[in-house]
Amino acid sequence: MNLSSNLNESHKGVLHRYGKYLPLTGDTPIFTLGEGDTPLVQSRRIADRLNCGALYFKLESCNPTGSFKDRGMVVVVAKAIEHGLDAVLCASTGNTSASAAAYAARCGLTAYVIIPGQNVAQGKLAQAIAYGAQILEIDGNFDQALSLAQAISEKHPIALVNSVNPYRIEGQKTAAFEIVDALGDAPDYLFIPVGNAGNITAYWRGFVEYHNLGVATQRPRMMGFQAAGAAPIVIGRPVEEPHTVASAIRIGNPASWKSALAAEDESGGAIDAVPDDEILEAYQLLAQEEGIFCEPASAITVAGLLKMSREGVDFSDKRIVCIITGNGLKDPDTAMKIPATLHKLPASLQDIEAEMGWA
Amino acid sequence: MNLSSNLNESHKGVLHRYGKYLPLTGDTPIFTLGEGDTPLVQSRRIADRLNCGALYFKLESCNPTGSFKDRGMVVVVAKAIEHGLDAVLCASTGNTSASAAAYAARCGLTAYVIIPGQNVAQGKLAQAIAYGAQILEIDGNFDQALSLAQAISEKHPIALVNSVNPYRIEGQKTAAFEIVDALGDAPDYLFIPVGNAGNITAYWRGFVEYHNLGVATQRPRMMGFQAAGAAPIVIGRPVEEPHTVASAIRIGNPASWKSALAAEDESGGAIDAVPDDEILEAYQLLAQEEGIFCEPASAITVAGLLKMSREGVDFSDKRIVCIITGNGLKDPDTAMKIPATLHKLPASLQDIEAEMGWA
Repeated sequence: MNLSSNLNESHKGVLHRYGKYLPLTGDTPIFTLGEGDTPLVQSRRIADRLNCGALYFKLESCNPTGSFKDRGMVVVVAKAIEHGLDAVLCASTGNTSASAAAYAARCGLTAYVIIPGQNVAQGKLAQAIAYGAQILEIDGNFDQALSLAQAISEKHPIALVNSVNPYRIEGQKTAAFEIVDALGDAPDYLFIPVGNAGNITAYWRGFVEYHNLGVATQRPRMMGFQAAGAAPIVIGRPVEEPHTVASAIRIGNPASWKSALAAEDESGGAIDAVPDDEILEAYQLLAQEEGIFCEPASAITVAGLLKMSREGVDFSDKRIVCIITGNGLKDPDTAMKIPATLHKLPASLQDIEAEMGWA
Repeated sequence: MNLSSNLNESHKGVLHRYGKYLPLTGDTPIFTLGEGDTPLVQSRRIADRLNCGALYFKLESCNPTGSFKDRGMVVVVAKAIEHGLDAVLCASTGNTSASAAAYAARCGLTAYVIIPGQNVAQGKLAQAIAYGAQILEIDGNFDQALSLAQAISEKHPIALVNSVNPYRIEGQKTAAFEIVDALGDAPDYLFIPVGNAGNITAYWRGFVEYHNLGVATQRPRMMGFQAAGAAPIVIGRPVEEPHTVASAIRIGNPASWKSALAAEDESGGAIDAVPDDEILEAYQLLAQEEGIFCEPASAITVAGLLKMSREGVDFSDKRIVCIITGNGLKDPDTAMKIPATLHKLPASLQDIEAEMGWA
C-alpha cells in the first residue's frame, strides 16, 4: 500500500521545484532530502548601521546537511543514478564531503571521500563519518587528493562530485531563483563568499537565466569576497599556501576562476579581499546583532559590505542579499574562541540578583 | 527609504504564517529568524524495512538554530517585547539556551543563561556563547539552576523562557499544523522524543486544534519515547539521576508530565522507553540509510518505531511521521564515536584503485 502524499510545493525539493530549469530527462530520478527553499531573512540591525534600503540574509545554513552544497549534490547524485552509477567520489574535508555522503546514503550509493592526511581537523569529518562514507586518507595534500579523484573518475564508473562536475553549478543556481521568487525581482547587490568560485558562478547563471526569461527585470551586481590570505582571484595568481580562518574558502587555485571573473565583469560587480580579523568581527556581529550563527566563510559577505560602506558606497536606496553559505555548528572550534561572557557564582538567589544588577 | 518586500508565504515565519492560531495582539511585534516551514521528508529505505504505508521525517533540525525550540522561542520573545521587557532568562545547557540567545540577539534583548557548573560540556554552549548570551555558571545542579531562574523571573522584570512558559508550547504546536498542511490530513501515528514533555504536549494541542477546526479529519496516535535511563513517565516516578546518551531528553522530572499523559490517553497512543544502544543504532540507521544526521534524542523516534515493528505492530496501511527535533552537529562528540570507515593509503592511483576494488 502506498500512502505517499503530494506534499505542498515548498517541501518538494530542488529537483521538483526547479526541474524545468535543470538538465533532467525522463529517466532522472526525482527525490529530495529537504534541500532548498531556505529562509530569506531580513536584517533588523546591521541594515540600520549601514543605512541600507533593505538587507536580507539567505540562510543556506538551513539546508539538510547545513550548507548550500545540498542544492548541487541532489542534481549530481540524481544524474549519477540516471547514468547507472552506484558510487560517488570527492576530494574534500568539509561541506562537500558531508553533502555527498548524505545524498549517497539516502540513495543507497557508496560515497568515497579522499582526504589529505596533512592538517585535517577530525571534527570536519564528523558528518561524513556519520553518513557512513568510505574515507580514503592519503599521504599527501589537497591538490593531490583532487587530482587522484579526477584520475579515478576518468578511468572507472564513479561520479566525481566536486564542483568541477557541471551539474553541481546547475543545482546551485536554484538559490538565485528562490531569491527572485521571494523578493519579486533580483536584488541590486549580491554579496557572496568566493573560494573555489563555483557558487558565484552558479548564482550569476541563475540570475541571468531568470532575467532572460523575464522573471526578473534586472540582474544584481555580484560582489564576491575572498579572505586576504587566500585571494588568488584578487591578486591575479594562484596562492601556494592559502591561509584563513574561513576554512570553507581556503582555496589557492579556484576551479571556476574564469567564470567568477565573467560574473564580476558582466554584472558590473567586484571581487575583493578582506582580512581574517574583519571576517571574525562580522562573524560575531551576525550572531550577536542578527541572531545568525554561520561558518566564518559566510561572514565574509557582511565583512565586505561593512568595508564598502566604510569606503563611502551609498546603499540607502539599494536592496542587498548576503549569502550565508554554511551553519556555524560546522566549525565549533572557531565559535569556542569567541570570548564568552561567563560569570561563576554560588547557587544563591542573592548572588545572581547582584550579578544581574538587582542588588 | 524602505525597500522591504512582501516575501512569499514560506519565508515569513511562525508568527506571520500561523498568527491567527497564536495568542498575539495588535501590540505583538511580528518578526522571524526563518523558523518553521521545515522539510517533511519521505523515507526511502527505513519504510521498506518496516513495511510502512508511508513514513515521513519532519526535519526540525533545519530550523535556524538547529532545533524545534525556535518555534516557541519566537513567540516567547515577541510576547516579552510586547510586555515591555528587555531581557530573557533560562536554565539550560543545550537547545533552549541556543534558541533564547539567538532570538534575544535578533531583537536587541539581553539573554541570561543559568547553567550548572557540574558536568557541562563546553561544546554544548558554543551557540549561546556565539550569540553573546550572559552565562551565569552556578555551583549547583540543573534543578537548582531552574529553581533560581524561576525565582528571578517572579521577582524581576525578565521573561523566563524555559518550557514552563506557556507561549513556548503555543509556538511549538505550529509544527503539527505544518504536517497537516503538507500531508493534507493528520498522519495515523506521530513518533516523538519525550524529555521535559513540552513538545508532545505542543504537537497534541496543534493536532487537536486543527481537528476541531475541520482542517484535519483525524488525530494521530501520539507515540512518545523516553530513554530507558531517563524514563520517569514510563516508570511512574521522577528519576533522581537520569542518564542517557540522548542529552536533549536527559530529564528526570518533566515539567509537562500531566499534559504528556493526557496526549497519550486522549490519542490512544503510548509513552514507552528504549535503551541507549537502540537509540544509537537508530541514529546510525537514519544517517546511513536516509541521509538524516540528527542529535541522538531525535533518533529515539525511529528506535521506538523499530521496537513496535519487532513487537508485531502492522504499519502497512499507516501513515507515520517521526519528529527529528535537532541537528546532529549539536552533538559532535557522539558522531565522532561512530566507527569510521577509514583507509590510510599512499597518494598513489594504483593503491586507491586497489582499495576501491579496481585492482
